[in-house]
Amino acid sequence: MPTNPVPDIVIGRLPIYLRALAHLLAQNKHVISSEELGQRVNISAAQIRKDLSYFGEFGKQGSGYNIAALQAELCRILKIEKERPVVLIGVGDLGHALAYYGGFAKEGFRIVALLDNDPAKIGTEVNGIAIKDAGQLETTIKEKNIQTAIIAVSVDAAQSVADVCVRAGVKAILNYASITLSVPEGVRVQYIDPVAYLQRMMYYL
Amino acid sequence: MPTNPVPDIVIGRLPIYLRALAHLLAQNKHVISSEELGQRVNISAAQIRKDLSYFGEFGKQGSGYNIAALQAELCRILKIEKERPVVLIGVGDLGHALAYYGGFAKEGFRIVALLDNDPAKIGTEVNGIAIKDAGQLETTIKEKNIQTAIIAVSVDAAQSVADVCVRAGVKAILNYASITLSVPEGVRVQYIDPVAYLQRMMYYL
Repeated sequence: MPTNPVPDIVIGRLPIYLRALAHLLAQNKHVISSEELGQRVNISAAQIRKDLSYFGEFGKQGSGYNIAALQAELCRILKIEKERPVVLIGVGDLGHALAYYGGFAKEGFRIVALLDNDPAKIGTEVNGIAIKDAGQLETTIKEKNIQTAIIAVSVDAAQSVADVCVRAGVKAILNYASITLSVPEGVRVQYIDPVAYLQRMMYYL
Repeated sequence: MPTNPVPDIVIGRLPIYLRALAHLLAQNKHVISSEELGQRVNISAAQIRKDLSYFGEFGKQGSGYNIAALQAELCRILKIEKERPVVLIGVGDLGHALAYYGGFAKEGFRIVALLDNDPAKIGTEVNGIAIKDAGQLETTIKEKNIQTAIIAVSVDAAQSVADVCVRAGVKAILNYASITLSVPEGVRVQYIDPVAYLQRMMYYL
């Protein structure tokens, strides 16, 4: 474990490394140099070595990284070795697509509860999970001991949904509503706002 | 126009400010201090002032920002005043949700073409747009003079789709496939990988 806090931007790159390592393993590769990995992820080899050095020694000088070992170590660092239950709030077009997205469960994020406030949806199933009334959000989170929530409700509802999540014990929120959420210290929020990403790129055109 | 290159991280915050300004206008507010804006977006007032200072003077000391004027100026800086045509490749669950997402057109990103390689989908309409054969990607981009692409295909297909986009003239790619794309200098890619965001947050639990 690192003695100094690791910059969040470094933590943010670890999943990118992990993603590339998984692809490499799928291609039956076993060892990779920081240079090759860097080319795969568009990050310099020096940056990769510096990022990993926060967590100790990985691989021997000149012999490259053992891919499976590095993958296991990064999973340990990120605390993603075990499966985690996730609640998804808002089952509109986007929530529906997210409920069917296989990538979450494959990486250990199992959506165990779906909630919506639309009476026409409550009780129907999506991908084998019955949609519950949004009014049951707090009890659902507590019962299932959920720490991770995906918010895919409208901008108007997002803050109040987040408030309930936090009150019930959620510590990590993936927010698809295009609004900055106010959460207490100790709760993390990551934002997915495709429009903001598009706007950002337009500057360079 | 700034004389020195503006750090990309600053450019990345401008859409966040814009989003908050739009919400403020919708609430009939007209003026806001950097402190209030900072609270809204979880960014310090000093950071906001510093970010904006790259682009000149905004508002008078002590009187706050005129929200509509700042919004117009940020749109000008990001070059998002005019509508831009967008091509969406991959109309699976996610692509379907994106094709229906109203947020793109509302902010000037109009999806004008949908493409897929599934014969069962080609020719069918989604949100009023007929799905074309993915083989027509290059001609579609050229004909419609498209510079912006949203890639929502599988990991295996993403790089080859990106290659065609770039060859046809695309300069900005929003990539939903969980793979790092290789693109030439001058082409921007932004990644939307919800699993990577979830993994990043787990570190802090």
